Amino acid sequence: MAKDIYVGLLGFGTVGTGVVRVLQENAEDIAQKAGARIHIKKVLVRDITKKREYLEKVELTNRPEDIMDDPEISIVIELLGGLHPSRELMLQAMEKGKQVVTANKDVVAQFGHDLFDMAEKHNVAFRFEASVGGGIPIITPLKECLTGNRISDIMGIVNGTTNYMLTKMAEDGSDYNAVLKEAQRLGYAEANPAADVEGMDAARKAAILASIAFNTRIQLDQVSVEGITNIEPADINYANQLGYVIKLLAVAKDYGDRGVNVRVHPVFLPSSHPLASVKDVFNAIFLRGNAIGDAMFYGRGAGSLPTASAVVADVISEARDIVNDQSSPIGCTCYNKRPFCPLEDTESSYYVRLHVKDEPGVLGAIATAFGDSNVSLKSVIQTRMVGTNAEIVAVTHVVKHSHLQKAADILSSLAVVDKIRSVIRVEAE
Amino acid sequence: MAKDIYVGLLGFGTVGTGVVRVLQENAEDIAQKAGARIHIKKVLVRDITKKREYLEKVELTNRPEDIMDDPEISIVIELLGGLHPSRELMLQAMEKGKQVVTANKDVVAQFGHDLFDMAEKHNVAFRFEASVGGGIPIITPLKECLTGNRISDIMGIVNGTTNYMLTKMAEDGSDYNAVLKEAQRLGYAEANPAADVEGMDAARKAAILASIAFNTRIQLDQVSVEGITNIEPADINYANQLGYVIKLLAVAKDYGDRGVNVRVHPVFLPSSHPLASVKDVFNAIFLRGNAIGDAMFYGRGAGSLPTASAVVADVISEARDIVNDQSSPIGCTCYNKRPFCPLEDTESSYYVRLHVKDEPGVLGAIATAFGDSNVSLKSVIQTRMVGTNAEIVAVTHVVKHSHLQKAADILSSLAVVDKIRSVIRVEAE
Repeated sequence: MAKDIYVGLLGFGTVGTGVVRVLQENAEDIAQKAGARIHIKKVLVRDITKKREYLEKVELTNRPEDIMDDPEISIVIELLGGLHPSRELMLQAMEKGKQVVTANKDVVAQFGHDLFDMAEKHNVAFRFEASVGGGIPIITPLKECLTGNRISDIMGIVNGTTNYMLTKMAEDGSDYNAVLKEAQRLGYAEANPAADVEGMDAARKAAILASIAFNTRIQLDQVSVEGITNIEPADINYANQLGYVIKLLAVAKDYGDRGVNVRVHPVFLPSSHPLASVKDVFNAIFLRGNAIGDAMFYGRGAGSLPTASAVVADVISEARDIVNDQSSPIGCTCYNKRPFCPLEDTESSYYVRLHVKDEPGVLGAIATAFGDSNVSLKSVIQTRMVGTNAEIVAVTHVVKHSHLQKAADILSSLAVVDKIRSVIRVEAE
Repeated sequence: MAKDIYVGLLGFGTVGTGVVRVLQENAEDIAQKAGARIHIKKVLVRDITKKREYLEKVELTNRPEDIMDDPEISIVIELLGGLHPSRELMLQAMEKGKQVVTANKDVVAQFGHDLFDMAEKHNVAFRFEASVGGGIPIITPLKECLTGNRISDIMGIVNGTTNYMLTKMAEDGSDYNAVLKEAQRLGYAEANPAADVEGMDAARKAAILASIAFNTRIQLDQVSVEGITNIEPADINYANQLGYVIKLLAVAKDYGDRGVNVRVHPVFLPSSHPLASVKDVFNAIFLRGNAIGDAMFYGRGAGSLPTASAVVADVISEARDIVNDQSSPIGCTCYNKRPFCPLEDTESSYYVRLHVKDEPGVLGAIATAFGDSNVSLKSVIQTRMVGTNAEIVAVTHVVKHSHLQKAADILSSLAVVDKIRSVIRVEAE
């Protein structure tokens, strides 16, 4: 083992601790695989006086330049999170000729382009396997193992918090607020859970996945986002009765000449679908390619050690390149400029739940509203009374989203309709 | 796109056709990803006069040297199958400085060592993603994405034929012979199904997976193998009643100082386990690492296009290296010499089904036989009459395999025991 490789670590939170632990505990094997000993030389932290586990022999600093200007450091791991100064520090590290690894989905989704440009300019590698799906290998498989395919569909459970909540709602019959509290108690949801439950976390990962899968840059603001805050126990029950489970999915689809669409929303998924059995905080990315057919990658989407697994793998890949005096053969893969297909032009089957007046002719009025909007129905059932209202559940055939929206507008305007309680896409049938 | 890369293809069966199709149909994207146009220049076939689809513009030859001696050909894809002359032709290609890709599990399991040595000697790449799990990315993820982990467990459904048969037995209640006929009719099983149903196909894949996961060379003849030929509908029914499914698994486990054990056998798997919902001809590899925790890779383990997906990805990786004038940074990863833990020293919980005389004291005699062998029981149930015999099902706690064997020997010798019908491991509890 001739070589030693020195790493600068920006940030020492949950994932940072995991990275240092993995590099220490598996040091012998990692040295064999990388062809070099990998040392964390310096760690950027706010408070350099605080004692920290696993960092006894490591230099702490609160000045980024101590890392940037250290010529011995050839790899920088960014684990600060957030957009700034993460972006700037990664760009600086690249300018200084250092390889970069990050787990930061925010930065990759928002500033991936800048980072790839800079990496290319300075002939350094930029890796971010941990930014989607935590420990699950998905970025590298897309960039290296599925390259013979044109990918047409991605459906990912990429947010563990919401998958845990939906699993508990389905298993225990609890309502949204109760499972949110439980998730917070267990540390699966943050005090401010907005980024998870409103779908923005999943949207960032969707943008990253879609950009790589379709080889075209997807901007975060193109992704339409709907979270799980409106899911009620009634929806979970109907899903179950009808042979579905409800999952929050990151969906990316290729609509051919119409372009690609990327979105995050809850879906009804057939209970026989491989994603349906992905429970609790586990993540999985399901995809379809024109050679491989259907495939799925499953594992832990968050947590100290699983995320560290992905970060350390990226570090080892970069170390191998350094040892072999080579540069990473794969940079930015967005060589296409695909149009973005607006949500209105996508199609799907839909589940619609309504509260209506309990009087003669209501079913007919509702069926007419759907029919006038070119939405054909697979089934309409009047199921139970909720107070003085009757609850009606309709499942449509595959229809254009814009037609479904028109139907919803008409339905909302009907005097007999109290409220549309839920509209949820049915996927993968 | 400056460069053209020329490929020689050895063999043009199901997978070969898929490879040529994928390279043609996805040519534009592949050229972008590889940084070069990839051309199949020559194909080795037996009968060069036969017209073949997709090969209108390709030179057919029945002389391997036409490919080996062609300096323009930089990548050789071996799809002949079998041990010889596949091994010799791959070695020759490497000696001529050509990169090699194969889908041939037989050769990799048996002669991987020779091939890696030769590849290293001539500084060429040797890739074989398609040899395990068909299209499912698993070799590259193990070699590049899970490198931060020490892998402790692999459990793989790596044979589609047997998984299809077990799925049908469970869903339709058919017996082994009926589903085998059906599988043959559908082309999922060969006329001579021995390699699949007796587990040798899975054993080859187990040896390859374990060698990579544990970084130590596992010889095919070290792998203990048991197929599905003895599985009866009664076993499927009991599995179902007890909350399990029966799957044929390739199992590789690290027993620490005792070494690693690699084996293929049917198992009782909890129906909530991610592998339990892998149905029909689908494959999946489940693994556990000390950083990533549990992960699973799922997809089509065979077939023309799925297997071609893996082969073409390997070709693209090698093309990238050629374009960048680099050599593959990852060769043989068997840097360890781990002892092999004999099957007898492994432990597990077991399901045992017996036919016994229907008379007083039988249950006691059986319980004593287990007890005398240090096998403690979780449950023993007498379930039904089969002719004049009573059927008894026992599930043990986790016990040493050698102790279970001793119990089986004692049981077989008892006058009250007509026959031990099944002994199946219970995994992943």
